[in-house]
Amino acid sequence: MKAIWKTIVCFAIVAGIIGSAYAQFARTDDAIKYRQAVMFLIGQHMGRMAAMVKGKQPYNQKNFLRNAVLVETLSKLPWDSFLLAGSDKGQTKMKSEVLENKEKFEEAAQNLETEMAKLVSAANGSDFNAIKAQFGAVGKSCKNCHDQFRSR
Amino acid sequence: MKAIWKTIVCFAIVAGIIGSAYAQFARTDDAIKYRQAVMFLIGQHMGRMAAMVKGKQPYNQKNFLRNAVLVETLSKLPWDSFLLAGSDKGQTKMKSEVLENKEKFEEAAQNLETEMAKLVSAANGSDFNAIKAQFGAVGKSCKNCHDQFRSR
Repeated sequence: MKAIWKTIVCFAIVAGIIGSAYAQFARTDDAIKYRQAVMFLIGQHMGRMAAMVKGKQPYNQKNFLRNAVLVETLSKLPWDSFLLAGSDKGQTKMKSEVLENKEKFEEAAQNLETEMAKLVSAANGSDFNAIKAQFGAVGKSCKNCHDQFRSR
Repeated sequence: MKAIWKTIVCFAIVAGIIGSAYAQFARTDDAIKYRQAVMFLIGQHMGRMAAMVKGKQPYNQKNFLRNAVLVETLSKLPWDSFLLAGSDKGQTKMKSEVLENKEKFEEAAQNLETEMAKLVSAANGSDFNAIKAQFGAVGKSCKNCHDQFRSR
């Protein structure tokens, strides 16, 4: 019986944490605007790194690393805002699948965070091929999530 | 004569750096969207801190500090995007004064960065009155810049 109570208490605590995270958005509009702002910034800074990876701009380690660290920070921010009930309606491209299959969405979100951490590690080093490969892995992670959860 | 050449070279280097920063925005629309995204996120995370400062939410040091560090990071991002020529036209509240008086704008921008760094320092400590006071100083810095450079 003790084990059951422990489980219940654990669930209650986790629910409380998640609940308070969601409560940060008073309206679904705010949640939508929030995640769109984060995603736009991620896109901009991914673009700055892409220019260096593709040789359109000369590679500059300090600059690349700064962008990678920033995107890593940004990549941790928006997931709560996607999971807010009702935020699949309105000015959004988010598919309802996010709310219907939260675990799968959270897995995809976690994947981006993991790949971004690896990119920061690579960018701290000087192996440009490794950086390029890991940048590709990040892009794949973005695409994988967008394919599943973003309408065109 | 040598001193003059040194000065010219210095100016050219500085202009080059600034130029390349501006070049990150292919279109003025992107610069406008970029700064609006950053400002929206700053507003959201300032709001989360304000709720704790005003006692609407219980003060939680870890949570407050995380928000302060994030806003400090965000506060360093948008200034280039405001200074892009022509970006005072379009879907923006930015006054042309920003482009007409760049030094004054940069001073106000620097002021926010300075006050945010102080808030992070305070939030690392446990003096809630000091945190409150410094949060007020940050708010003043926001207001000062908005009053001068943002139309209503």
